[in-house]
Amino acid sequence: MLKVECDIKDIFELTNSKLGSEGLLLVSMDLDGKYNAMTIGWGLIGRVWGDPIFMVAVRPTRYTHRLIEKTNDFTVNVPNDGMEEIVNYCGTVSGRDYDKFKEIGLTAEKGERVKSPIISECIAHYECKVIGKSKVIPDLLSSEVKRRYYSSENYHTLYFGRILSTIKEK
Amino acid sequence: MLKVECDIKDIFELTNSKLGSEGLLLVSMDLDGKYNAMTIGWGLIGRVWGDPIFMVAVRPTRYTHRLIEKTNDFTVNVPNDGMEEIVNYCGTVSGRDYDKFKEIGLTAEKGERVKSPIISECIAHYECKVIGKSKVIPDLLSSEVKRRYYSSENYHTLYFGRILSTIKEK
Repeated sequence: MLKVECDIKDIFELTNSKLGSEGLLLVSMDLDGKYNAMTIGWGLIGRVWGDPIFMVAVRPTRYTHRLIEKTNDFTVNVPNDGMEEIVNYCGTVSGRDYDKFKEIGLTAEKGERVKSPIISECIAHYECKVIGKSKVIPDLLSSEVKRRYYSSENYHTLYFGRILSTIKEK
Repeated sequence: MLKVECDIKDIFELTNSKLGSEGLLLVSMDLDGKYNAMTIGWGLIGRVWGDPIFMVAVRPTRYTHRLIEKTNDFTVNVPNDGMEEIVNYCGTVSGRDYDKFKEIGLTAEKGERVKSPIISECIAHYECKVIGKSKVIPDLLSSEVKRRYYSSENYHTLYFGRILSTIKEK
């Protein structure tokens, strides 16, 4: 699949649409080069601190959290139609127990500007370097959000990734 | 100017482009019906907690901070070409000292789903209800971001507004 650099505007619609349906694949890597893909249904795109930003939210219990904390970068990968089963799988099992790329037949391709790889089979990609973090603060949530998403105290870390590269299928 | 409801995708490109140039106008209101417009160059759009979200960042010293804290909603307004001077003015003076709408000749139009008004002269609008807040955490910022934006301890509050309505010029 031939791919080219593009503008954020060229892939926002696709990205936001997949966020609201089957999800996107967040890929991160540890310092030994072990990488993992996690399915995400949340994400924000725009500008903060003068930079183009992709914000992702990861609970501290997640394997991905440990990886991002190590290398401080990540990629967001937009799956192609027909990859629903793969996306579902990556949201079901933990990278602690499974090499998801191997198990489900995904190909890791070297990121151009970050350590974390991109997923070859996906049709669009964001390469991001974390320049700021925050946390979900339980006392500042609406009662509905708190009830629906935070029965445990596993509050998301918010990673603000500076978008270094956006790539799409040619 | 005739306006219609639209999808986020229809106005994202315009919104993100203005964020990176002259800015957008964030409008909020207090409980007595006094409203204010503030220029913003930062903002994120996408999905969090299962909802379409517009995230804005406001320093606690800002007049707008006090207003959003009261009514818990806001609108984001995309200025038309030619409104650069107005946008610049709204980013220069404080709503504590000036009725900016009156001074610069802006028209407040009743929001459809939030208390805060929209600005008639703008060409696209987001109406948002705050469902979560967070804060910029200084220790979790890159040293570059910290140096460039936080010489004082005036760390932004992050308002996650559920997008209730998106409107654009017909």
